[in-house]
Amino acid sequence: MSKTTQDVRSERIGFLEQSEIRAMTRECTRLGGINLGQGVCPLPSPPALLEAAAQAVREDLSTYSRFDGVDEVRQAVAEKLAHYNNLQVDPETEIVTTIGSAGAFVCTLQGLFNPGDEIIVFEPFYGYHVNAIRVAGCVPKVVTMQAPDWTFDPEDLERLRSDRTRAILVNTPGNPSGKVFGREELTLIADFCKAHDLLAITDEIYEYLVYDGQEHISLATLPGMFERTITMSGFSKTFAITGWRLGYVAAPAHLAEPIGLVNDLFYICAPTPLQHGLARALKVIGDDYFDEIRTKYKANRDLFCEALTRAGLTPHVPEGSYYILTDVSRFGLHDARASAMHILEKAGVASVAGSAFFASDGGRDLVRFCVAQPREVVEEAAERMQVFR
Amino acid sequence: MSKTTQDVRSERIGFLEQSEIRAMTRECTRLGGINLGQGVCPLPSPPALLEAAAQAVREDLSTYSRFDGVDEVRQAVAEKLAHYNNLQVDPETEIVTTIGSAGAFVCTLQGLFNPGDEIIVFEPFYGYHVNAIRVAGCVPKVVTMQAPDWTFDPEDLERLRSDRTRAILVNTPGNPSGKVFGREELTLIADFCKAHDLLAITDEIYEYLVYDGQEHISLATLPGMFERTITMSGFSKTFAITGWRLGYVAAPAHLAEPIGLVNDLFYICAPTPLQHGLARALKVIGDDYFDEIRTKYKANRDLFCEALTRAGLTPHVPEGSYYILTDVSRFGLHDARASAMHILEKAGVASVAGSAFFASDGGRDLVRFCVAQPREVVEEAAERMQVFR
Ligand SMILES: Cc1ncc(COP(=O)(O)O)c(C=O)c1O
Ligand SMILES: Cc1ncc(COP(=O)(O)O)c(C=O)c1O
Repeated sequence: MSKTTQDVRSERIGFLEQSEIRAMTRECTRLGGINLGQGVCPLPSPPALLEAAAQAVREDLSTYSRFDGVDEVRQAVAEKLAHYNNLQVDPETEIVTTIGSAGAFVCTLQGLFNPGDEIIVFEPFYGYHVNAIRVAGCVPKVVTMQAPDWTFDPEDLERLRSDRTRAILVNTPGNPSGKVFGREELTLIADFCKAHDLLAITDEIYEYLVYDGQEHISLATLPGMFERTITMSGFSKTFAITGWRLGYVAAPAHLAEPIGLVNDLFYICAPTPLQHGLARALKVIGDDYFDEIRTKYKANRDLFCEALTRAGLTPHVPEGSYYILTDVSRFGLHDARASAMHILEKAGVASVAGSAFFASDGGRDLVRFCVAQPREVVEEAAERMQVFR
Repeated sequence: MSKTTQDVRSERIGFLEQSEIRAMTRECTRLGGINLGQGVCPLPSPPALLEAAAQAVREDLSTYSRFDGVDEVRQAVAEKLAHYNNLQVDPETEIVTTIGSAGAFVCTLQGLFNPGDEIIVFEPFYGYHVNAIRVAGCVPKVVTMQAPDWTFDPEDLERLRSDRTRAILVNTPGNPSGKVFGREELTLIADFCKAHDLLAITDEIYEYLVYDGQEHISLATLPGMFERTITMSGFSKTFAITGWRLGYVAAPAHLAEPIGLVNDLFYICAPTPLQHGLARALKVIGDDYFDEIRTKYKANRDLFCEALTRAGLTPHVPEGSYYILTDVSRFGLHDARASAMHILEKAGVASVAGSAFFASDGGRDLVRFCVAQPREVVEEAAERMQVFR
């Protein structure tokens, strides 16, 4: 085959496939199902945010911003980090506004890691994380968390560590597990990082969605961790603006600098009118908003978990985020794609095959439902699932 | 030094520096100069576009779109390509909406090229192109274009070609040269690509800005070229919305597919409310708009070139784009940074050192001015330059 125009895929993406989530979305549309697959979050965004961004668009705040974001966004993010995460950062040198948390992770990988570097990840994982690691030429090393409460064996960290280990990635609250890492677990991870001079990367995009008295803890706030931690988050989920592409990295200047260089080269900057709208809205949106979404998502979780149980399936009730991993071994298929398709065909509800979140075969009896949907939609889906009773 | 937390930069970005353009911008702000450096394009955007996007924001069209963009954008881009570029593409499989043309190029490089692959570029070049090529592990091979009319020696193409040559990059109209590649030159490049089974990548972001009866020709429209050409463009410059981050790739499906996979992984999608606004506006913005900006930028070019000449400097009058490379050897500094600083200090006008656009020392007596500014600003800068008379 021709090396140039025919066999065109680069080796680094040789393994990549159209995300299974999108395939399921297409199938769901075809069958007229309710889509609890992809985490698109089609919920109303805060009116104050929409109005502020519409106004910024109308004001023609349209030019490139500084590569790391407009001053007001970095300032507002720094204030939010101090207020909610208990993390003090310098908005001038320690924040990079990115194209979503997806962009934050790509810039982190490209800016800090070399091909062959190993990064420890917890399974079940968010597929984009593992794919982005591999596209950067790095090697994901997988620690398996054990259902039902997604604990891990600390010895696995030591066992997976090698001379090439450079970092550990912690997604809390986690997608798809909903796991919220507790202080004890985070301390253990912190000690591991410090003992072996590793970086830590956190994905905290679901930080406001923690239930049942759980507390969201940013790893960077643990003693000795700020200097070695890249904290990633964004506004996609918090404000139901997944399409706006606004996220950020908070990290000490010596880490933020190379990340910012890649951000500049790959993205130039995050969308500026939306940045301005966000900065203005963050000034007026108070804690009551975060309480409200937490209550709303918890109600959706409770409703759907209860319905799954009633239908004879076994949800892993999540401590955070808005995903529900569910054991569907009862169908006897032991193939997550087939199970998800079975559910779509029989109940008209789309989910994501659990295998998308595992390197091992640990996901073959799991599917993931996303309950970031209006209440009526979750109710209707809950009702439909009763076909399995 | 510690391999992990101290010596943090990845090898792939080892060579990267804060863009010189941004350093100059900072210096300009400090000195209160007029900034004709970075191509930020602080001009009014079409009111119909601002209104449509503000409306889309208010309508809360906020969720992730398909990775390759919302249907209406791909449709509108396909129509625009047919109408202006004489290029027929399938909006379903041959367009990927990207985070600006910058994003288009990153996805192209990551999706199609392997480390060690060689890509031919023309000098003077847009610095981001060469940096992005290098970060992807590829090797830029530089063909020098000769002032004053930026011709190149076809034999240089052959001379630079090796077993590792995979593609040639053509930026027309060019930044910083303003060069508009003519049909004869493009035919020669097309023949070269076809003879050696190379890909072609075009950056046509200044496509609407061609003067003096020049015609913008898309390389993909030449016989046998569509199947091997990645056409990149965007709306940053055309609509003065550099901060919106909306660009696209048009390419045959077998090339668009891997590019789309990277776009999905690196960016998820382009900002959706802005996508919707763009799609709606493209329906109502007619050819008169493009004529109008062409006329406006040409007037700025003429005004500033005349002023430079009057001041005893030698502009290379551009055939397209909105940059003016200018010979400043008269200052006798033979160091482009020093010359740009001299101009900023003496005249209060910021430019970009020509050395940013050359791998060779061909830029040492050049600076680049950007005249994408309101008329009054260009007039004031023209006046200030007379200090050198
Ligand atoms: C864990 C996690 N990280 C990152 C993302 C992507 O977020 P963003 O829209 O900020 O790029 C998602 C989206 O589903 C996610 O679940
Ligand atoms: C030649 C060229 N290509 C690409 C870009 C970046 O454009 P975008 O804003 O579409 O990413 C620029 C901006 O200056 C440019 O001059």
